Parts: sequence; C-alpha cells; structure tokens
Amino acid sequence: MAVSEYQVTGMTCGHCEMSVREEVGEIAGVTGIDVSAQTGKLVVTASDEVDDAKVLAAVEEAGYQAERA
Amino acid sequence: MAVSEYQVTGMTCGHCEMSVREEVGEIAGVTGIDVSAQTGKLVVTASDEVDDAKVLAAVEEAGYQAERA
Repeated sequence: MAVSEYQVTGMTCGHCEMSVREEVGEIAGVTGIDVSAQTGKLVVTASDEVDDAKVLAAVEEAGYQAERA
Repeated sequence: MAVSEYQVTGMTCGHCEMSVREEVGEIAGVTGIDVSAQTGKLVVTASDEVDDAKVLAAVEEAGYQAERA
C-alpha cells in the first residue's frame, strides 16, 4: 500500500471535492481518497505506488491545479 | 412571461450554480434561469408567475439559502 499527498488549489466547496474524488478515483490501483477543499490537501492511497503524473492530470481534468506535497 | 429575482447565499463556484440551476429547473413553468455564485443573484424566468416558495424550496434543496430580492 502506498500513500501519496498532494496540494490542490482552486477547490471551494464539497462539489469541488467530489469532482476531484471522481477523477482521481478512476486511476487504476487507487483504493482511498481523502480530499479537503478547506486545506487543499489530497491524500491518495493505492495498492501500489501511484504515478504522480496521473494524479496531477486527474486533478487538472477536474478543473484544478495540484502539486506533489 | 414573468421574471423573478432572488438573492442566494452560500454558493462558491460553478458547481454550486449548477446545483441551483438543476433544482430550480424542475419547477413547472420555468423557462429560464440565470444564476451567479459571484453575486448570489438568481433570476428565474417563467411562462407564468412562479411561486416564490417553490423557488426558495428548490434553492434550499440544492443546499443554499435564498430570499426574494
């Protein structure tokens, strides 16, 4: 199991969190997602190490910017 | 045609606008909806005069508070 943490900017509400959750949840191997619009913190748990580029692309697809924390 | 204006509090982003739009759009007779998270302004156009209570209830259903402007 691997846990990766990212900092997301631009989320303002629960809908935004849900958008990020949906996109990141589509990445193969992801088993858990913890995301907060308030702090911008995104924690992704996966069965194996996730590709940061995939997570960042998923967040961008949802409409926000992220970087590895 | 009747145009009614409301002030909505609590919307922060486009997702919020969409939630309000969806709920208000379910009211019979509504033909147009203009909503802005930035100003909180909600303008409802309907074929006939809409019932304010229905609009306020729809906004509340979406998760926000509104009052007739």
